[in-house]
Amino acid sequence: MNSNYEQYREHMQQLADINYASALLQWDQEVYMPVNSAAARARQISTLSGLAHEKSTTEKLGSLLTTLEKDHSLNAKEQANIRETMRVYKDQKKYTTAFVVEMSKTVSQCFDAWQEARKKSDFSIYRPRLEKLLELKRKECELLGYNDHPYNALLNQFEPGATVATLDALFNEVSNKLVPFIDEITSAKKPDSGFLFRHYSREKQWPYGLELLKLMHFDFDAGRQDISAHPFTTSFSATDVRVTTRINENDIREMIWGCIHEGGHALYEQGLPDEEYGLPSGEAVSLGIHESQSRLWENNVGRSLPFWKFNYKHLQHLFPENLGNIDVESFYAGINAVEPSLIRTSADELTYHLHVLIRYEIEKLLISGKVQVKELPELWNSQYKKYLRIDVPNDAQGVLQDVHWSHGSFGYFPTYSLGSFYAAQFFRQAKIEIAGLDEMLASGEYKPLLDWLRTNIHVHGKTYRAHELCKKVTGEEINFRYFFEYATAKYGRIYQADTTKIVS
Amino acid sequence: MNSNYEQYREHMQQLADINYASALLQWDQEVYMPVNSAAARARQISTLSGLAHEKSTTEKLGSLLTTLEKDHSLNAKEQANIRETMRVYKDQKKYTTAFVVEMSKTVSQCFDAWQEARKKSDFSIYRPRLEKLLELKRKECELLGYNDHPYNALLNQFEPGATVATLDALFNEVSNKLVPFIDEITSAKKPDSGFLFRHYSREKQWPYGLELLKLMHFDFDAGRQDISAHPFTTSFSATDVRVTTRINENDIREMIWGCIHEGGHALYEQGLPDEEYGLPSGEAVSLGIHESQSRLWENNVGRSLPFWKFNYKHLQHLFPENLGNIDVESFYAGINAVEPSLIRTSADELTYHLHVLIRYEIEKLLISGKVQVKELPELWNSQYKKYLRIDVPNDAQGVLQDVHWSHGSFGYFPTYSLGSFYAAQFFRQAKIEIAGLDEMLASGEYKPLLDWLRTNIHVHGKTYRAHELCKKVTGEEINFRYFFEYATAKYGRIYQADTTKIVS
Repeated sequence: MNSNYEQYREHMQQLADINYASALLQWDQEVYMPVNSAAARARQISTLSGLAHEKSTTEKLGSLLTTLEKDHSLNAKEQANIRETMRVYKDQKKYTTAFVVEMSKTVSQCFDAWQEARKKSDFSIYRPRLEKLLELKRKECELLGYNDHPYNALLNQFEPGATVATLDALFNEVSNKLVPFIDEITSAKKPDSGFLFRHYSREKQWPYGLELLKLMHFDFDAGRQDISAHPFTTSFSATDVRVTTRINENDIREMIWGCIHEGGHALYEQGLPDEEYGLPSGEAVSLGIHESQSRLWENNVGRSLPFWKFNYKHLQHLFPENLGNIDVESFYAGINAVEPSLIRTSADELTYHLHVLIRYEIEKLLISGKVQVKELPELWNSQYKKYLRIDVPNDAQGVLQDVHWSHGSFGYFPTYSLGSFYAAQFFRQAKIEIAGLDEMLASGEYKPLLDWLRTNIHVHGKTYRAHELCKKVTGEEINFRYFFEYATAKYGRIYQADTTKIVS
Repeated sequence: MNSNYEQYREHMQQLADINYASALLQWDQEVYMPVNSAAARARQISTLSGLAHEKSTTEKLGSLLTTLEKDHSLNAKEQANIRETMRVYKDQKKYTTAFVVEMSKTVSQCFDAWQEARKKSDFSIYRPRLEKLLELKRKECELLGYNDHPYNALLNQFEPGATVATLDALFNEVSNKLVPFIDEITSAKKPDSGFLFRHYSREKQWPYGLELLKLMHFDFDAGRQDISAHPFTTSFSATDVRVTTRINENDIREMIWGCIHEGGHALYEQGLPDEEYGLPSGEAVSLGIHESQSRLWENNVGRSLPFWKFNYKHLQHLFPENLGNIDVESFYAGINAVEPSLIRTSADELTYHLHVLIRYEIEKLLISGKVQVKELPELWNSQYKKYLRIDVPNDAQGVLQDVHWSHGSFGYFPTYSLGSFYAAQFFRQAKIEIAGLDEMLASGEYKPLLDWLRTNIHVHGKTYRAHELCKKVTGEEINFRYFFEYATAKYGRIYQADTTKIVS
């Protein structure tokens, strides 16, 4: 036993204890907390955040890390842990207390202003707060340091190792290939999807959602599902992973693909090695890889024909009044209807990436100072016209729709698209390596796929960076080609489009 | 603004944040946590306890308290806060780390041994662990210091200011007056209570429990009710107070009086002054006073004839198959049936205190070393024969029934009886001060009583010690007379006993 490493491990595990306690306070706030307790809960979370920050920046941790960095007796996983912890430690140490306090205050004001602005659809309420926040975010880039583009400093917080160079290449392809493909299929006849918006009772939706999670091998001895206003996944260890869902009685899609999406996130968390609790090797790689797991289950599996060939009968049986005269092919076409729309969170699997592309482009311009906050609404609306071919009727449904910027989360949006692209690339590889995967999915056997994800992705925690992991699993770094092949094959078939013209 | 006092307040509030986060981890463990997460949760709670202990014993707090103790600009409430915090601080500082670690390890082993021993009804499994624990508890008494009797040091942890002298006087009266009274009424015909054990469905019990809480003015915007194996009340601020209940479909008593009992605890917590969050003036006085609030609602209100004159019709309407032919007087008699029994937690309102008396006497003997652990089962059984006139068939239903000793909680049991005695004394005073209280209770008006409790008890937090508060509210310190008057009047009527012979 290396006693320095053991000290480091105990330090990190105690830090995790504090962070997970804080996560439970937040979960409870969204799911069960009585309304009057908002102020007390806010200060409890804030105190725990302060303790966690203290613990993650102590000199004791710093000197342990410095010693362990030079310790050649550590194995590869231990070395990766020290490397990753040191990276975060050094970044954390760059923040002065004054900066943290100012940022926290500014974010809080910006969030309040955003809420009011969105309610009134009045960007001017938000504007001065967002200007202040952006000024601080630019300072944060300088303080953290970066190569090539200040935006890289922010990207690094959500997707370590990702750069503007890589993302530009990916989103160029979105613009050059996906946009024309969407144009082509949306000019064809849109499949009927009206049956998804009939009345689906809450009482029947809830147990069906639980059943979907069971089908996916979500472990209810190591997790649970609850209801919240906005679906999310959180965990307090690999042995306690919680998903939430919401039920819309007039749109069955929210519950079904919400459950599958959060279930995908949860399977990743449940698959992380419990014995590495609190260490990078026990944590998810990045937001992009996390999203790859949710998107793979939601789209590549949960919006596929094989999946519904097995599961549709039961759904139809539950809701005969809505689905009795809809056959599985029509159901499959309906749930995959593509249509440009205003709101990112309810976008289909293809146009979703145009929403992300627009945000990514705008974020870079804001951070580099090439665009001012006051120009935002006009820029937003012109980009929606350019890529999605639609007019934005007001700011509430336009530039004010997302919470992210008001939280100071710049560099977060691109990870959504990275998730889908990684998902397509991983899923293609799984099909190569698991003989008969499509047939398995068509007969309700999801364990072989889950095992493959466990072995190839979950079990490693943060031992590899996202790009390293992708190369290790698929033989190459992220490549838009696999998502595009998947999209053109699937939607070409649904829309009867001539995909041979498009696939390059 | 006194800046030292402000520093002290912020310190205490951060300490409360940590303790309340820990309380949420524990609440969640009892109510929602998935089974596999026990180990991770245990370490999270342990880390937070460690942080709280650190924060409650820092030199910084000590020197703030020393300065503030001499600060005559503080008002009476502020002075009481400093006095109470200093008392706890000094006690905490008496524990060495080595002692705390040994105690924690011993308790954990003792609890495991108790669980196994109770399952197998084999005291010998428990005995060596309890011996070790008692040795430590005796050391703890020396370490804390005491006057007159070492047991006073332990009592002080749960009921600051209570002493063996006061308790001996009270329990002598239990022995000399209550025991003969119970003998007398139990020689009369026992009222029929069989209707309480018919089948009461879970689906109808649950909403009825919520309704009882609403009737009592439990604030659901500042609290909630859930299900757990053992009912309890916890709080994370006066704005988030949670009760739990359990439902036994073959014994409606568990849910009804469980809800009312925990509801009484909860009303106290919701009535503590929120602006004193984290300070003694924002906390309950003692376990005894806490229990007085639960017992007052459970027994003096919830087992009274006026209460059921108003509420019985609805209950009867919900369960016509069980209660259709039971009139309210018969119901009232049945829920107040007195019968000596083996298990404390299911004892009636009168014999309950004999269970406590026995434990109190045994605890004193154990702590003073006058009785050895090996003599416990025989002593227990002989005391049950002496006071309750029953034979104990095995240790599982005898000396092994309670968890308290295995947790190291000696000095806790007497607070249960103190609670009932305080409750009777407070309730009598409320009747004097609220004109027509019985008529109000008989017409479902509970707000005047709650307001009286709020003004006289809840709002003060720990500003007064229990005995001071009792004197302030009722004009005298705790006096068994009021409980005995209540008991003889109520049960004399139910059992048609000649109470004139007994009331002295």
